Amino acid sequence: MGVFYNMAIKFAARMENIKGSAIRELLKLTEEPDIISFAGGLPAPELFPIKELEEVTIKVLREEGKAALQYSTTEGYLPLREKIAQRMKKVNVECQANDILVTSGSQQGLEFSGRIFINEGDVVICESPSYLGALNAFKAYLPKFVEISMDDNGMIIEELERALEQNPNAKFIYTIPDFQNPSGRTMSLERRKKLLELAYKYNVPVVEDNPYGELRFEGEMLPAIKSFDTKGLVIHLGTFSKTFCPGLRLGWVVASPEILSKYIVSKQGADLQCSTIAQREVNKFLEMYDLDAHIENLIKVYRKRRDLMIETMEKEFPPGVSFTRPAGGLFTWVTFPAHLDAAEVMKKSLEERVAFVPGQSFFPNGQFKNHGRFNYSNMPEDKIVEGIKRLGKVLKAMV
Amino acid sequence: MGVFYNMAIKFAARMENIKGSAIRELLKLTEEPDIISFAGGLPAPELFPIKELEEVTIKVLREEGKAALQYSTTEGYLPLREKIAQRMKKVNVECQANDILVTSGSQQGLEFSGRIFINEGDVVICESPSYLGALNAFKAYLPKFVEISMDDNGMIIEELERALEQNPNAKFIYTIPDFQNPSGRTMSLERRKKLLELAYKYNVPVVEDNPYGELRFEGEMLPAIKSFDTKGLVIHLGTFSKTFCPGLRLGWVVASPEILSKYIVSKQGADLQCSTIAQREVNKFLEMYDLDAHIENLIKVYRKRRDLMIETMEKEFPPGVSFTRPAGGLFTWVTFPAHLDAAEVMKKSLEERVAFVPGQSFFPNGQFKNHGRFNYSNMPEDKIVEGIKRLGKVLKAMV
Repeated sequence: MGVFYNMAIKFAARMENIKGSAIRELLKLTEEPDIISFAGGLPAPELFPIKELEEVTIKVLREEGKAALQYSTTEGYLPLREKIAQRMKKVNVECQANDILVTSGSQQGLEFSGRIFINEGDVVICESPSYLGALNAFKAYLPKFVEISMDDNGMIIEELERALEQNPNAKFIYTIPDFQNPSGRTMSLERRKKLLELAYKYNVPVVEDNPYGELRFEGEMLPAIKSFDTKGLVIHLGTFSKTFCPGLRLGWVVASPEILSKYIVSKQGADLQCSTIAQREVNKFLEMYDLDAHIENLIKVYRKRRDLMIETMEKEFPPGVSFTRPAGGLFTWVTFPAHLDAAEVMKKSLEERVAFVPGQSFFPNGQFKNHGRFNYSNMPEDKIVEGIKRLGKVLKAMV
Repeated sequence: MGVFYNMAIKFAARMENIKGSAIRELLKLTEEPDIISFAGGLPAPELFPIKELEEVTIKVLREEGKAALQYSTTEGYLPLREKIAQRMKKVNVECQANDILVTSGSQQGLEFSGRIFINEGDVVICESPSYLGALNAFKAYLPKFVEISMDDNGMIIEELERALEQNPNAKFIYTIPDFQNPSGRTMSLERRKKLLELAYKYNVPVVEDNPYGELRFEGEMLPAIKSFDTKGLVIHLGTFSKTFCPGLRLGWVVASPEILSKYIVSKQGADLQCSTIAQREVNKFLEMYDLDAHIENLIKVYRKRRDLMIETMEKEFPPGVSFTRPAGGLFTWVTFPAHLDAAEVMKKSLEERVAFVPGQSFFPNGQFKNHGRFNYSNMPEDKIVEGIKRLGKVLKAMV
């Protein structure tokens, strides 16, 4: 048998295209306690409803423990899906429990979107830059990415139309309309409607990813693209990760019956169902507590942190460095002078014990190196000020 | 825009190959309370450690609540992986925390196995019959299945060698060595060694699925195939679903570094990580309680139920109907006379309010219709006797 030792294992072709997420590798580095990290996309743990979750869990285990620990349906716990359907009204979406599948975070909804639509070589149209975790999930299905430039109102619609025209094998448009990851930008109401018009014209589904929409610091919430969708061509992804906590891994998909049925069979094959008890815990929390009041608290804290980060950037960053001013969500997007490589900035920045995410990997075709994603939700105020100050010094020495 | 209304949505080709699981659809039917159901693969909920889980959860939330509700690493919670590595000694496998990825049940390990190895048209070699949920997970990657006949000692090794010889594009051998789902059969020690020899000879990885191994009612536990694997060609899948509870959705993969790294990047794209708090709960349970003592209790109850089911089948089933005598696990496999279609038996059986799973869908190529899978872990003793009696009458009228 020795002759076969070390023979290469034959993996599937798709594995060539899947690399570990730069962010999650980076997060490991930045776990050292003295690092001021703007790198992750983590909510503030000091705001987690820990006591409430204890109460809720005890109730669930005592009142419905056997059912809560048993296998259950793939679609998800019906009372929870009913409550999610209710909550979708916040973004003007009218839907029923039957239009909803509970997923392991919205990340799983992204993964299923790739699985359901992408044949090798098909095109995914996305914002430029776009969410790294989505790009990685899609990459397993070997698509090509066509990136659409953004301005402060989101995707440039003319560019989107050109892309749809030129790519008849486009399988879906992927967008994060609210407080986009990584750019912090929000798509205007007008563009949401125009995007949907184009989706209808070219018969291309829209995957609308909305993890941050409820975390709006100012102005009116905008209706989801899904709210205008009369033809069932929009798939809306939501999650409790940013409004409740990420550790339970609960998100959802809203879609029309034909499309949702594909997500359901995908879920069945992928992991049968989400945690039964986690679903019942969140359901019970929604019965016993006011999630919207909790979100108001998050908004107050995050708004203050955004203000501090932006103010400090304005004071400390040298001319030639710009950044977005997000009206909500977790991130601002920094643009360094064109000659600066953000990976180099990060290297020097880590010497000062400050971390952020270099932006190149948010461009699926990797063409821009002079950006960085900065998270403000996870660090206390004094560390935000101190971290941005230190980075300001690094940048002044580099530009 | 009206002209495009109702235009067909273009799904990926793989979706043609994915159907909902017959079992999970059936489970919905059999949820009516007066049905005596041998259909599911459910553990006995009255044995779930509900009180212990309450204590454990309170401790986790109070002592480590912030970390327990936050994002965490893709690989899984280190102390839990250390404990899983320890537990792997029960099946003679020596491994470390770093050899382990925590997954959403072993189902997710199966799904990743398909993703990592299968290109369209590649061959998966499996037992005949085999676990429906695995077959469905693999089907998303468009393989061909080559089935290997079994006897009471597991796969027929000569047939396996022929299959390996004739299928150079075989990507892995899928096997459930202990108390196989659906057949209840266990692969002999000798065959385990021979299977691995063949895997080495043909350089084909082995996916060893072991959800039931710890539920042995009699005789000595057999070493896992992984325990003989000196070349890192065996992927071992485990789960807490049958020994603790399925509702938390926690399983694991043990594999050599090169292979495990593929599972880890797959997990990252699929759903980032398992529930942080669920992992910490199981870890705390393993610290505070004796899982093996709990398993001993399960074994006592399940052994009694198996005995009753087999005894009642011997008494009540007409000649020409045979069944396996599993030494552990959850299922026995019934063979009806060749002319009987199990779907027809199930139809008549449902009229008597008794359910089981017709066996055809456990054959990936669908060639046999005269089998049924019977679960004995989920029904109390009086219902087992009553259900088998009713089915006996149905069968007597049909043969």
